Amino acid sequence: MSVLSFHPEPGQYAWTFGGAAPLATVRSGDVLELFTEDCFAGRVTTEKDLVTQVCEFPFLNPQTGPFYVEDAEPGDTLAIHFISIEPARDQAASTTVPLFGALTSTHTTATLQPPLPERVWIWELDRIRRTCRFTAADSDFQVDLPMDPMHGTVGVAPANLEVRSALVPDAHGGNMDTPEMRAGVTCYLGVNVAGALFSLGDGHARQGEGETCGVAVECAMDTVIAIELVKGRPTPWPRLESDTHIMTAGSARPLEDAFRIAQLDLVQWIANDYGLSELDAYQLVSQGVESPLANVCDTNYTSIAKMRKEYLPAASGSAGSGYGSHQRLRAKAAEYWQQSRSRPL
Amino acid sequence: MSVLSFHPEPGQYAWTFGGAAPLATVRSGDVLELFTEDCFAGRVTTEKDLVTQVCEFPFLNPQTGPFYVEDAEPGDTLAIHFISIEPARDQAASTTVPLFGALTSTHTTATLQPPLPERVWIWELDRIRRTCRFTAADSDFQVDLPMDPMHGTVGVAPANLEVRSALVPDAHGGNMDTPEMRAGVTCYLGVNVAGALFSLGDGHARQGEGETCGVAVECAMDTVIAIELVKGRPTPWPRLESDTHIMTAGSARPLEDAFRIAQLDLVQWIANDYGLSELDAYQLVSQGVESPLANVCDTNYTSIAKMRKEYLPAASGSAGSGYGSHQRLRAKAAEYWQQSRSRPL
Amino acid sequence: MSVLSFHPEPGQYAWTFGGAAPLATVRSGDVLELFTEDCFAGRVTTEKDLVTQVCEFPFLNPQTGPFYVEDAEPGDTLAIHFISIEPARDQAASTTVPLFGALTSTHTTATLQPPLPERVWIWELDRIRRTCRFTAADSDFQVDLPMDPMHGTVGVAPANLEVRSALVPDAHGGNMDTPEMRAGVTCYLGVNVAGALFSLGDGHARQGEGETCGVAVECAMDTVIAIELVKGRPTPWPRLESDTHIMTAGSARPLEDAFRIAQLDLVQWIANDYGLSELDAYQLVSQGVESPLANVCDTNYTSIAKMRKEYLPAASGSAGSGYGSHQRLRAKAAEYWQQSRSRPL
Amino acid sequence: MSVLSFHPEPGQYAWTFGGAAPLATVRSGDVLELFTEDCFAGRVTTEKDLVTQVCEFPFLNPQTGPFYVEDAEPGDTLAIHFISIEPARDQAASTTVPLFGALTSTHTTATLQPPLPERVWIWELDRIRRTCRFTAADSDFQVDLPMDPMHGTVGVAPANLEVRSALVPDAHGGNMDTPEMRAGVTCYLGVNVAGALFSLGDGHARQGEGETCGVAVECAMDTVIAIELVKGRPTPWPRLESDTHIMTAGSARPLEDAFRIAQLDLVQWIANDYGLSELDAYQLVSQGVESPLANVCDTNYTSIAKMRKEYLPAASGSAGSGYGSHQRLRAKAAEYWQQSRSRPL
Repeated sequence: MSVLSFHPEPGQYAWTFGGAAPLATVRSGDVLELFTEDCFAGRVTTEKDLVTQVCEFPFLNPQTGPFYVEDAEPGDTLAIHFISIEPARDQAASTTVPLFGALTSTHTTATLQPPLPERVWIWELDRIRRTCRFTAADSDFQVDLPMDPMHGTVGVAPANLEVRSALVPDAHGGNMDTPEMRAGVTCYLGVNVAGALFSLGDGHARQGEGETCGVAVECAMDTVIAIELVKGRPTPWPRLESDTHIMTAGSARPLEDAFRIAQLDLVQWIANDYGLSELDAYQLVSQGVESPLANVCDTNYTSIAKMRKEYLPAASGSAGSGYGSHQRLRAKAAEYWQQSRSRPL
Repeated sequence: MSVLSFHPEPGQYAWTFGGAAPLATVRSGDVLELFTEDCFAGRVTTEKDLVTQVCEFPFLNPQTGPFYVEDAEPGDTLAIHFISIEPARDQAASTTVPLFGALTSTHTTATLQPPLPERVWIWELDRIRRTCRFTAADSDFQVDLPMDPMHGTVGVAPANLEVRSALVPDAHGGNMDTPEMRAGVTCYLGVNVAGALFSLGDGHARQGEGETCGVAVECAMDTVIAIELVKGRPTPWPRLESDTHIMTAGSARPLEDAFRIAQLDLVQWIANDYGLSELDAYQLVSQGVESPLANVCDTNYTSIAKMRKEYLPAASGSAGSGYGSHQRLRAKAAEYWQQSRSRPL
Repeated sequence: MSVLSFHPEPGQYAWTFGGAAPLATVRSGDVLELFTEDCFAGRVTTEKDLVTQVCEFPFLNPQTGPFYVEDAEPGDTLAIHFISIEPARDQAASTTVPLFGALTSTHTTATLQPPLPERVWIWELDRIRRTCRFTAADSDFQVDLPMDPMHGTVGVAPANLEVRSALVPDAHGGNMDTPEMRAGVTCYLGVNVAGALFSLGDGHARQGEGETCGVAVECAMDTVIAIELVKGRPTPWPRLESDTHIMTAGSARPLEDAFRIAQLDLVQWIANDYGLSELDAYQLVSQGVESPLANVCDTNYTSIAKMRKEYLPAASGSAGSGYGSHQRLRAKAAEYWQQSRSRPL
Repeated sequence: MSVLSFHPEPGQYAWTFGGAAPLATVRSGDVLELFTEDCFAGRVTTEKDLVTQVCEFPFLNPQTGPFYVEDAEPGDTLAIHFISIEPARDQAASTTVPLFGALTSTHTTATLQPPLPERVWIWELDRIRRTCRFTAADSDFQVDLPMDPMHGTVGVAPANLEVRSALVPDAHGGNMDTPEMRAGVTCYLGVNVAGALFSLGDGHARQGEGETCGVAVECAMDTVIAIELVKGRPTPWPRLESDTHIMTAGSARPLEDAFRIAQLDLVQWIANDYGLSELDAYQLVSQGVESPLANVCDTNYTSIAKMRKEYLPAASGSAGSGYGSHQRLRAKAAEYWQQSRSRPL
């Protein structure tokens, strides 16, 4: 088993999907141990560190990568399995950002009203008890919420010759900000350019569904992934697979279009890989789907469609989903844990 | 304890919120045993019963009610607690409806494309095992999904002198189509007219989040509710409370507006009743909220915002939420079950 | 020629479409001289008259009517031709309204930001020079804009047993707020209930396209209309006809749905009445249409699609459009002017 | 006067904004004579040339450029004045494109319906009479529409390190598809990168407002522009100026956000350059604005806000608008015409 470790130097982060030179070349089957910096590039460490003062646009949401995947070509799919996602520090930060977030006017939902105040909250992380402590700014309330680490951003270089900011979610993945991107999950991304050029970042110790204020409990992460290249199979929009569910992620505006994309892709995935007709799949999804929102604040909104595997026929060709990658990468993860003693379960 | 039973005669159903004469007068503290007909008025019983042929527009989604609540006035809140919601028959129906649903063009998302085929699925309900059986139309696949009964529609007469079709969800409640409206939950609705004039209907043996094809597993229900009138307290949008969560329901188009309404109402509920500042509540909700979609097919879309009570400070004035009704109505439900032998737990 | 005059008493206005008793019965071919009060019910007459203080919700946007049209039945169309629309006073009012308008958050595009300041502007109308004088509140700038009188609101009772506030635009017409509803134009509305029950109000001395702040140059009007009942012809969404154009009005949210409705109805009107195939009509509309916005502030947004008659084949059956009403009602208007000496041209 | 001519070789077109090497360096004050190819790269010349067969994605919408403007830096504005826009051939093409356009489901407004048929219309251009002839495919109808040549696409390299497809409209300009981009108009674009890197293309012999089917009367153009660099003045969204109007262009989804952007930018432009307070400007725009739609089919929708100069106070600092460029470039155009005998007026 090939295990590679990457902890980028300050100047090595990428700020876009596409348009950045690869950090390294990797192969299908490799395990990667990655350090990801938080979305503020590590600059918000106290309540006094206002993003508009300490951060330098557009250098937000640093990406670890991109990685060039050997043999990856347009029309293939890259499967990225999250073996573990662990906060790298004992605290995390969140904040309001002027004219950003769901409960404020923004640069596109533009109004004449002044922005909300800019305020920072520092969350204490207890990595043993696996909690995130909220401390109110205007009263003496504190509460511990369960830690549920995830990556807000994972993606490949986009199609159509484009380069997109790391803050954007779209068909190439990117800043989807879904809590479903947690350890144990496999993410499928369609390859648009030679080498796929995937990267990830934007760790969240936890996040509410929709990321209402636009910012989660942002923290640096130590993350382990295993990758597999699925040759000759395109994937139109990001898909996820856990032991229990298959999931799709649609990103668009308005939010109903993000919903439509995810639900249609789920219906068509089931029709294609599980042998139901499209109308039967439409009916079954209508009654069985879970539809947790991911983000309603980014340049595109992201909606998840999520179906229990036990509600579906057996997938064609292979166990799990039609890709088969999830099972193989789960086995790879088990192998990795056997070899590794240095990380907590 | 006052227990009243209502099983409407065929001509007694209401088809609107507002504009219908009350079926009866009830009082805060009453328990009501209600029969509700399915959204097709019971006319779809086989795969051959196409809605466009057997149903008569606008006589869809029959409501049991309205009930006039003694002393209810604009500015009050009506709390409706669902003691039980049980399918009244052994089968339920679902269907596609031409130019209705999320994955088709509609009369408002209007395109030149022809509609999808109209097709009916009959679901068998096993009320002992509490399952709903899906039978594919185009292959021989069958699967049992868990029964999870709910009411798609519950509401009061709207404000602003309006009368709305029972198919519409808005600030008065109505056709919100959220799976969260299950037994054990209390629904709070702001009173807009004297007597509140509440009604309910549209039972679903189960429903996916978003009600993708526009139609759930539709069935008649035997439902028991207990009501409480909260005097002098307005409620801007429908709110729900379970033993574990407080929830808000926003209904609007586009879907992000439904999301905004629900999230803002949750933030303001917490700020008002739980003693956090609005910005602290905004931050806490951003990290703690669950945001399952209700419907993305009706005349307004409905988005739920859902917060665990254990993440919140103690509510002012009373246990549970600021209303206090949920605990009292839970006690009323226990009392009802003690007196009643005729219904399953 | 039958000419009827109506100047409602204070208690005679209607505040809804549907649900109000008819003011009078009229017949196809009648000419009606109507007084309409402004949307504030005449209560805003100085800069100090804030709507939130002097107006009483929901008693906004008073309607003159409804009128019961003899023989009108569902499936018919009512044609209302505007012979003249003349301001009834020498001043008009506009204002910001808290949480209403396009450049502010609202009750549905809900944010945590405070509302914009409430401010009133009084516009002086010069009915001889036909100008509206704007006077800046914060500087000494004044400017005269051309008077272009119109009715923001004209509609019939809605379908589906509903009663809608006079502030709502939808398939029944209502508060569409399009500057195209000026003298010389015929408005076609599908009849939903016996008698049609049409009413109108909300005169604007002029209005920008989109009614950005939510309020136009609001004034009472002396208006003359001629009506014609088109038996056996349904009209799905409001349509307008001038000497030079046919137009459609779609009302929905998001705004692209209002656009889709209007454009599709224009394509289908042309395909149906002018003998082009749907695809040819789609192409011709795509290159020839004018698409001025009506309102982007009301409960539904309204988009107009407008096509020059000279770009179209001859209409089937009759001159002008397929309805033929516009030409007949233009003749009726000429006859009215000949008989009348009391009103300015 | 420096006049430069560019007729790109087949391999010289750009397909993106940003990410392409400059064709040449130009200076403030230069006049450029440009040939632009049509959006199909010239491959659709008969009704049999289906885009999905003859075009090669993503090589659509070729751009002439980019041009590097000497001294242009982020924070400056580039003014591009259209001296003339003349069809370069005697015919133009339009078409339906599967899953693209306003009256069809698309890849984002995703449904289960099959796409509309793909069909091409060839429009004959009469450059003397200045007409475009439509020929119906399914009947024998023909009609001449006025020629009104425009550029669908004009833009600079985007901000935030991005590279965008030439099919995208956004704050950098790009594929806005507004008929207002005609000869006699000056377009102001904020500079995001050194040299601005502007390009243009996508000529339309004419286009309806909204570009309903997604495709205009597409033709190659001979276009003459004059440019001016406005140092030290940022421009947030594209602005236009004609002899009679100032205009803003907002691009976003949903369409109401495009409307909000344009209207807010117009209000703030007037407040900043014409000395009105924001609230006074809001009121004046609300009553005076014209709001023709540009496109409701591209990846972002574009809405125009358009105000007559005669409704405004005198602009600060200079005649016309605050930029002053339009008058100077009009003078430059007059000078160009005096020197030139080779092109038709």
